[in-house]
Amino acid sequence: MPKNVAEKLMSSHLVDGEMKPGSELALRVDQTLTQDATGTMVMLELEALGLGRVRTDLSVQYVDHNLLQTDEKNPDDHAFLQSAAERFGLWFSKPGNGVSHPVHQAHFGKPGVVLIGSDSHTCAAGALGMLAIGVGGLEIAMAMAGQPLYVGAPEIWGVELSGELPDWVSAKDVVLEMLRRHGVSGGVGRIIEYHGPGLKHLTAMDRHVIANMGAELGATATVFPADDAVETYLEAVGRGHDFTRIEADENATYDVRETIDLSTLEPLIAQPSSPGNVIPVSQVGDEDVSQIVLGSSANPGLRDFAAAAEILDGQQADQNVSVDINPSSREVLADMIAGGWLSSLVTAGARIHQSGCMGCIGMGQAPATGQNSLRTMPRNFPGRSGTEEDSVWLCSPETAAASALTGRITDPRTLTESHGIQAPHPAMPERYAQVRDMLQAPLPTEEAKRVELVKGPNISTLPDFDPIPDHLAAPVVLKVGNDVSTDEILPAGSRVLPFRSNIPKIAEFAFTRIDADYPDRAREAGSAHVVLAGKNYGQGSSREHAVIAPRFLGLRAVIAVSFARIHWQNLANFGVLALEFDDPSDLERAEQGDQVEFTGLWDALRSGSQLTVQIGGREVAVHHRLSDRQVQMVLAGGRIPLVAQEL
Amino acid sequence: MPKNVAEKLMSSHLVDGEMKPGSELALRVDQTLTQDATGTMVMLELEALGLGRVRTDLSVQYVDHNLLQTDEKNPDDHAFLQSAAERFGLWFSKPGNGVSHPVHQAHFGKPGVVLIGSDSHTCAAGALGMLAIGVGGLEIAMAMAGQPLYVGAPEIWGVELSGELPDWVSAKDVVLEMLRRHGVSGGVGRIIEYHGPGLKHLTAMDRHVIANMGAELGATATVFPADDAVETYLEAVGRGHDFTRIEADENATYDVRETIDLSTLEPLIAQPSSPGNVIPVSQVGDEDVSQIVLGSSANPGLRDFAAAAEILDGQQADQNVSVDINPSSREVLADMIAGGWLSSLVTAGARIHQSGCMGCIGMGQAPATGQNSLRTMPRNFPGRSGTEEDSVWLCSPETAAASALTGRITDPRTLTESHGIQAPHPAMPERYAQVRDMLQAPLPTEEAKRVELVKGPNISTLPDFDPIPDHLAAPVVLKVGNDVSTDEILPAGSRVLPFRSNIPKIAEFAFTRIDADYPDRAREAGSAHVVLAGKNYGQGSSREHAVIAPRFLGLRAVIAVSFARIHWQNLANFGVLALEFDDPSDLERAEQGDQVEFTGLWDALRSGSQLTVQIGGREVAVHHRLSDRQVQMVLAGGRIPLVAQEL
Repeated sequence: MPKNVAEKLMSSHLVDGEMKPGSELALRVDQTLTQDATGTMVMLELEALGLGRVRTDLSVQYVDHNLLQTDEKNPDDHAFLQSAAERFGLWFSKPGNGVSHPVHQAHFGKPGVVLIGSDSHTCAAGALGMLAIGVGGLEIAMAMAGQPLYVGAPEIWGVELSGELPDWVSAKDVVLEMLRRHGVSGGVGRIIEYHGPGLKHLTAMDRHVIANMGAELGATATVFPADDAVETYLEAVGRGHDFTRIEADENATYDVRETIDLSTLEPLIAQPSSPGNVIPVSQVGDEDVSQIVLGSSANPGLRDFAAAAEILDGQQADQNVSVDINPSSREVLADMIAGGWLSSLVTAGARIHQSGCMGCIGMGQAPATGQNSLRTMPRNFPGRSGTEEDSVWLCSPETAAASALTGRITDPRTLTESHGIQAPHPAMPERYAQVRDMLQAPLPTEEAKRVELVKGPNISTLPDFDPIPDHLAAPVVLKVGNDVSTDEILPAGSRVLPFRSNIPKIAEFAFTRIDADYPDRAREAGSAHVVLAGKNYGQGSSREHAVIAPRFLGLRAVIAVSFARIHWQNLANFGVLALEFDDPSDLERAEQGDQVEFTGLWDALRSGSQLTVQIGGREVAVHHRLSDRQVQMVLAGGRIPLVAQEL
Repeated sequence: MPKNVAEKLMSSHLVDGEMKPGSELALRVDQTLTQDATGTMVMLELEALGLGRVRTDLSVQYVDHNLLQTDEKNPDDHAFLQSAAERFGLWFSKPGNGVSHPVHQAHFGKPGVVLIGSDSHTCAAGALGMLAIGVGGLEIAMAMAGQPLYVGAPEIWGVELSGELPDWVSAKDVVLEMLRRHGVSGGVGRIIEYHGPGLKHLTAMDRHVIANMGAELGATATVFPADDAVETYLEAVGRGHDFTRIEADENATYDVRETIDLSTLEPLIAQPSSPGNVIPVSQVGDEDVSQIVLGSSANPGLRDFAAAAEILDGQQADQNVSVDINPSSREVLADMIAGGWLSSLVTAGARIHQSGCMGCIGMGQAPATGQNSLRTMPRNFPGRSGTEEDSVWLCSPETAAASALTGRITDPRTLTESHGIQAPHPAMPERYAQVRDMLQAPLPTEEAKRVELVKGPNISTLPDFDPIPDHLAAPVVLKVGNDVSTDEILPAGSRVLPFRSNIPKIAEFAFTRIDADYPDRAREAGSAHVVLAGKNYGQGSSREHAVIAPRFLGLRAVIAVSFARIHWQNLANFGVLALEFDDPSDLERAEQGDQVEFTGLWDALRSGSQLTVQIGGREVAVHHRLSDRQVQMVLAGGRIPLVAQEL
């Protein structure tokens, strides 16, 4: 039977399960990546599991999130991660090397590989014909320990591209078009596979942009074929030998089909405060701009900076606009220098920041109160920028650069008439810059064994979590709406991120963006409470702290209309029961303060997916989508106690 | 009578007073500079005074300190400062343009000018034959309102330079030698004037390095002649027409004399945690390094970055060292790109940060707990880096770069043998980069009048302070030792700096580095308390918040062995009585908790400099050094109420 690219990648790594939507697959994992904000917890999990050395082909620890060192906590974490990478046999990428996704793609990406990462944008590597999936940190720790990845078998969503992008329209607008059409949960339970004749006009870095924001569509992964464009890319990073061609078989089919004619697209922008809130830039009214930010995993390629630089070359940014540049990697920065683009940006008035995620994760670059900030980043959830009353828009580098010039949100297509500026088509070097020895290789096994973990005073150990009780009686401490993101459950940002390795401390921030009193109420409720939620609960970042922190405060069950994939897995991993309403209208009838009661929970979980629960005295029908394996986890108090029993 | 350079500069600006040590001079002020951390308060003071437009020849508002935007407070301050610059007729330099001192020197510095700045390193401009003095913010506001600067007539300390610096030794080592000889209070009450045949080997930017850290010697100012080197510099920044030759008259004399033979110097380093704690690098034992930081007002020149880049070119920094680069200005960054130096640094493993003060003011780049950080910065007071248990050393770019390569504190002279690296002598461009329109010019008067101040929610108004009472009875709430810096009185750093425009909030940080309970005890003491201190109280930064914050909590008098100059002025400006013990041993006999009583204070202050005070029941003789004008201020509750009465 002819296979599409996604099916080829999954079937070549299938350890267990059946490739039909709804069942659980076990996939062999070749590579992992962790970043610092999630990685400290992964390393503590490896320590808790007593692992000697990672069992993957390759695992890399990056430091790209917590780069602002306003006190000792972040640099102490960096030292801890370096020692852990040395101890457990990982590669280590130090602060300043850049964002994990473009660096990983450049140094380690190759067609046919399964990569998982404790960062939701790991999916970007799908650009190279890889199956790349963002998961919770514990999934990574388990893969490092040699276990397969368990994932619900997805539908394959074939998106056929035709035509060629017009001037002033770039890859970001393609994925914004997908978000315009389908919103932030359109991809849930699906792998998006791009195919068709339009592909030949998209470079591997263009595809990286599109694959990256598959995360914002809620997709399990995004895949592209490994075709000529991928070969060209691998040659440009000096690894032509890593190329293997992987394309869909002739007559391959897709579970869902869609088409985009690239030639019909125009510049798009996601309005505050959701990536799904997309409209054409030409339809934005008169809006002043006080900041633009270029960079992040969503527009990390040299081409994206070069395009903005060519627009701004010889110009001066509007005096009321802060032009913030985050080079995505050390090597992109080197190429920006070599190509003259950095110079253009500096002279036009830009602020050049260190390579890394920076403002994308709220680590610096917060905008002024109520002022519009245009960013090439993937997310604009409320407050994620660091500013409570923020107004963040997501767009292409072209739209951001045009708006920096004029001081208002500007369709870049108008620049030719207003400023005599032509559409940028920057010429890329045949070979990208490569910085020798930028990455620290794993230590030999004997040497690694002698490494001691370096733990600063802010690095705690993992708390123990007890199994879920057979009779659970607990109040609803919080009821939330649709599309609540992990940024709202457990914020990122410079105030919170430094506590990522300190659970008791970080728990004090749980849900406080939605309700400042949640931590207090949770503690008052004692050892158990319940949260009720609408659709797509837990969208966004993969951070497992969004489970661990409320679990530390007593969260035992979330009853929602539906869940985002990674967060749903994280809940099971840490022994929190994720249940869905059979009838969504039952959510409307339930209130904060209602008492929730489950009786005979253990048997009910073991015997099927349907449960009945009392909420405020009413009987409500709910179901779970846990596999047998996940039921075992919940009954054991999480995956760590379960696997620790096995080891 | 023949005059030295300092005397020429003072006499040409003398409005009132006599040029003999001990008397108070009133000097006409030509230019002012303010930075953002102190500038927000200055702008609030202008608002409180009801000023229409600045009356100086030129005033510039820089934004270089609070560049990390982890929430809305810093960007809101930037917007406020821009609006205030537009409203009051100042130039405005936006975030990313760089550190005030090198930018001011490049764009506005010229021989013969008197510049005051609300930043203690304003003295750096003495490199060009200017009289440049760091003062409290209120002095700046008064100068902008057309008032002269009042300053104690200094001794002139002539330092004759002979010989030429050896390879691997640079300007930073000259000023470290001064600190090695004289410590952090060696320059108190003095202007340092460098002269002699050694000068011809020091460029204007070398002199900037030396003049800058005159602040660490406690000097009122540092001056150099305006000679050929200054002419060369002004031509290189495109302002040869601003050159005027100003040199000491033949047979000019100095109150104090000293000589340095440059050829005898070796690489020096200030050990933790004082700039005065200087030893030769060759005498440092085996010390690992986890961070180096290049930049700041103390080594801001292109040459300093280029020297480090030439050492690191083609090499890889030790994998355990974070190499942090703070380009000092947009134009230095442009020149680092053009000269290939930025590329060398990036490839060698450096992290390139935005232009500005950054880690020098604890705004990022905090080192890991207990790890050695080598910095080209001017200060290493305890905790200033942002890390409580820090270990910060101050050195030249050569020493920092050498240590980055080896991973331990390294005398750069050893690199030739160990690495085959020759001493760097980077060739400077004939013309430095100049970025057109980088600075926003003052608005025309009519347009300026229409500008509204943009005040974010964190920007408060100035509190009203009442006059000192005639009978003062108050407890000693804190007793501190020698050389307490304004960093210890009111810390900088990323946690505190964002509250610089919010007095009630920032007061909660007063003295907390020394004693966490000070704010509570001060409040318990009610409306009045006293602090006792040793020598050189209030050294370091010019921040007037170090007076305003404790004053807000009730501080009415500081009785010390001696005071640092700027802080002493700031105390008077805000109505806090600064008294000195006649017999320093009286300090030893007094304790925290003792009751202090002054009776008939008003008459005593008006009638002379000697006072008697009861401390813990003992009579203690003290004196003040206040001018009649300053006595009036203290009696009025500070300079603002006094001048507001006059206006």
